[in-house]
Amino acid sequence: MTTTAQEKRVSAFREYVKKMVSFNQALSILHWDMRVKAPRKGMDARSELIGVLSAEQFKLATSQELEEHLEALSEPAVLESLDPITRGTVLETKKEFDRSKKLPPEKFQEFVILTSQAETVWEDARANNDFAMFRPYLEKIVKLQLEFVDYWGHNGNKYDTLLDMYEPGMTVNQLDAMFATLREKTVKLVSAIAESPNKPDTGFLTKHFPESDQEAFSRHILEKIGYDFKAGRLDRSVHPFCTSFAPGDVRITTRFDPHFFNMALFGCIHEAGHAIYEQNVNPELLGTPLCDGTSMGIHESQSRYWENMVGRSLPFWNHFYGDLLKAFPTQFEGVSVEQFYRAINQVTPSFIRVEADELTYNLHIMIRYEIEKGLINQTMEVGDLPSIWNDKMKEYLGIVPENDKEGVLQDVHWSGGSFGYFPTYSLGNVYAAQFANVMKNQISGYDELIKNGEFEPIRAWLKENIHQYGKLKSPNELVQDITGEQTNATYLMEYLEKKYSEIYNL
Amino acid sequence: MTTTAQEKRVSAFREYVKKMVSFNQALSILHWDMRVKAPRKGMDARSELIGVLSAEQFKLATSQELEEHLEALSEPAVLESLDPITRGTVLETKKEFDRSKKLPPEKFQEFVILTSQAETVWEDARANNDFAMFRPYLEKIVKLQLEFVDYWGHNGNKYDTLLDMYEPGMTVNQLDAMFATLREKTVKLVSAIAESPNKPDTGFLTKHFPESDQEAFSRHILEKIGYDFKAGRLDRSVHPFCTSFAPGDVRITTRFDPHFFNMALFGCIHEAGHAIYEQNVNPELLGTPLCDGTSMGIHESQSRYWENMVGRSLPFWNHFYGDLLKAFPTQFEGVSVEQFYRAINQVTPSFIRVEADELTYNLHIMIRYEIEKGLINQTMEVGDLPSIWNDKMKEYLGIVPENDKEGVLQDVHWSGGSFGYFPTYSLGNVYAAQFANVMKNQISGYDELIKNGEFEPIRAWLKENIHQYGKLKSPNELVQDITGEQTNATYLMEYLEKKYSEIYNL
Repeated sequence: MTTTAQEKRVSAFREYVKKMVSFNQALSILHWDMRVKAPRKGMDARSELIGVLSAEQFKLATSQELEEHLEALSEPAVLESLDPITRGTVLETKKEFDRSKKLPPEKFQEFVILTSQAETVWEDARANNDFAMFRPYLEKIVKLQLEFVDYWGHNGNKYDTLLDMYEPGMTVNQLDAMFATLREKTVKLVSAIAESPNKPDTGFLTKHFPESDQEAFSRHILEKIGYDFKAGRLDRSVHPFCTSFAPGDVRITTRFDPHFFNMALFGCIHEAGHAIYEQNVNPELLGTPLCDGTSMGIHESQSRYWENMVGRSLPFWNHFYGDLLKAFPTQFEGVSVEQFYRAINQVTPSFIRVEADELTYNLHIMIRYEIEKGLINQTMEVGDLPSIWNDKMKEYLGIVPENDKEGVLQDVHWSGGSFGYFPTYSLGNVYAAQFANVMKNQISGYDELIKNGEFEPIRAWLKENIHQYGKLKSPNELVQDITGEQTNATYLMEYLEKKYSEIYNL
Repeated sequence: MTTTAQEKRVSAFREYVKKMVSFNQALSILHWDMRVKAPRKGMDARSELIGVLSAEQFKLATSQELEEHLEALSEPAVLESLDPITRGTVLETKKEFDRSKKLPPEKFQEFVILTSQAETVWEDARANNDFAMFRPYLEKIVKLQLEFVDYWGHNGNKYDTLLDMYEPGMTVNQLDAMFATLREKTVKLVSAIAESPNKPDTGFLTKHFPESDQEAFSRHILEKIGYDFKAGRLDRSVHPFCTSFAPGDVRITTRFDPHFFNMALFGCIHEAGHAIYEQNVNPELLGTPLCDGTSMGIHESQSRYWENMVGRSLPFWNHFYGDLLKAFPTQFEGVSVEQFYRAINQVTPSFIRVEADELTYNLHIMIRYEIEKGLINQTMEVGDLPSIWNDKMKEYLGIVPENDKEGVLQDVHWSGGSFGYFPTYSLGNVYAAQFANVMKNQISGYDELIKNGEFEPIRAWLKENIHQYGKLKSPNELVQDITGEQTNATYLMEYLEKKYSEIYNL
């Protein structure tokens, strides 16, 4: 291409991509509104509206016009000459385009219909504690996932292809090593804790906490850690989530349990961790697919860092405990900050993943990882999942659920066809510990800052090293550039061993 | 066309229209969110998003594909054979299509830029009380409106073409007759009231009314009159409005003045009047441009009916006064229902339209109508507006504003190029009285129902005769079908004369 032809091409491509992104933004807003604000009788019309606009979006994302742009701009010499944002946009768009185009439309259609039915069946199956009911749907979903992998191609391990959708570049090799470390050390730590006579008292966490007081206190903490309310909102929803329409508009939701202190506050800090990431992406990336967290795992590293490594740390509560006592004077009367700190970090093997503590959480994920890998590599069968599940619970957590409702049927993910998503939760914990380890070396007086409630240097570091890039750097690049090594679970285990040895006096 | 060809054509057309409507719905939701929920730092991205989707919407609304559908389906024999909803959809879509296509795109572009600048200039001009600053912009806007009328064509009176955009079929002939009645009788009534020694005491309306109490009471009243909160929401915004995404999702907003009782409650009832209309449109019209109030005037008839003819009536307060005293026991201590009723119906000539009472409101509108007609028929010049304005204020209301800020510069409408909109406010009052007159004859025990807080028969009548049709009937058809005559201001004046003669003991 001549320079002028290339400039024209780039400008047309960028405009086209901006339109695609606009559809995504609009759909995100329609979804947020549906989940947070829309009245009940408006749901049908809203679903239909989302359907119409999604179809338009799909047309844009798979059009011949886009294909021509991508072909022209993907030529190596051309690609090399592009500015980094346009180059990243071409690569990211091409990846999504290829993924869509390689699937026959009727296969995708089949998947959409199947998973939509499966989610309803899963709900009933869970309610009735009836795995047999869900089994044929899950079998079809796994079969279809395997067909998808064949269309998309794979490099030896089929599960890698699925992982790549949520964590670009992540492999079973890396995850096997990571979970080996987690498995060995976590199981040991959990049983040491189980045997410890020094259990924290947690009774004061289940007193009555009026919702409005919880909300006011959560808002106070979010402001202090640096969630920007001028570029966001906090609302209520059944399932808490974070959604970004642009760096200037990143919203979070929470839910309140008036009889359990932890839910709203730590949920809010978690979602704010996601949101602070999105609020600090370079705004020049807006209008491209790069204006977003780079992967599920890196995203989760941000939410877990703020929730657990900051929000459940002793220095943090040394700073905020006075505010807490002011907000809930009767509930925490006579409770010391150390008692409070130990209580919010209680470790108890339990059946339900979303209620698990910081330490046992990774074991829940590991079970799911091993099962997904087994199903996709065809070394396990769907019909055996209930017993496999229970065996692994016994082995890793030392407890066995009484029914499948509290076991293999508890999560929605598989019914929606999401295989490869679960590991990103543990990756988030692992990344977070790796990043925190570097921060401690690079930010002077790191612990003191938290103890003084001064989070600006931490946020600046996160922005500088992670947030600003959006999807311009892949997760592997980010981790390598920041830590000088690849995914490494040692740092997480060192952190957990130190923290829980102190709490449980091991 | 063969039957099969026609069926295919209809189905493709309906699908195309549904897509257009979906864009409108999405844009409405994005606007609502922007005005009600979005954080400040998200405004720029939101404006840009709205810009991108509006451009797509404009392409859809002016495409060759749509033109072909409309040509094929507008053939008289074909049109005749269509079902009523499809026929109405063809006619409504063709009207909008022609309006868009007749304007050269560069003229429309000029209008968009000019009015966007003019709104900013108007804000400054009003703040600085400087009509000269705004004058050149208003002159250009009038000039452009005249060019638009030439492109669109007219039947003798150019202003009719502009009226038709807001009130299809409305003409200067009808309005002149209507305003002649209003002018003669209102001016007389206003001066009789001015001379009456029986002025209501209104001091208790400006006590302190906490916002949360006002909101709770407003919600109570809205539920009672039949605004369906399961198909809507009440939120806060700077300027109150009602917006419909579908009959199952019609939202209203209000604002609170803690030192003036009337603002929030009557504002809420007004917006709920609009909303009850939209909530009761036949849901089969969803996905077509017919799923909407049929005109600005008919819409306003619904809001004004509920706000003034129900909400400011004595039977209404005979029913709800106990609730009011419970909600605001100290504020209305010692105030009788009659005193309250007289206070909320106080008549005082004033400068600002949006603060005007039920009676003098039409005089404010009449001034604007006469000026718009004068400008568009080129019998008045923009430069003379300040003095024309003040002369008319003197003549109709007996008062003269001290400056243009409280006079000719007070409304945003002209800076946005909306000529022909103002008369619909008075049309709403006139229609409302015509409809109420029929209701009194057709609904047995009409006054008793209001006195008992039983609004279901009234809502059923409104749905049956007005709401369900959406845009399937034009305003003139509706009025003719319901009342057996055309627009007639006599009923409004009879209602006002009776009401205010009693209140002011004339």
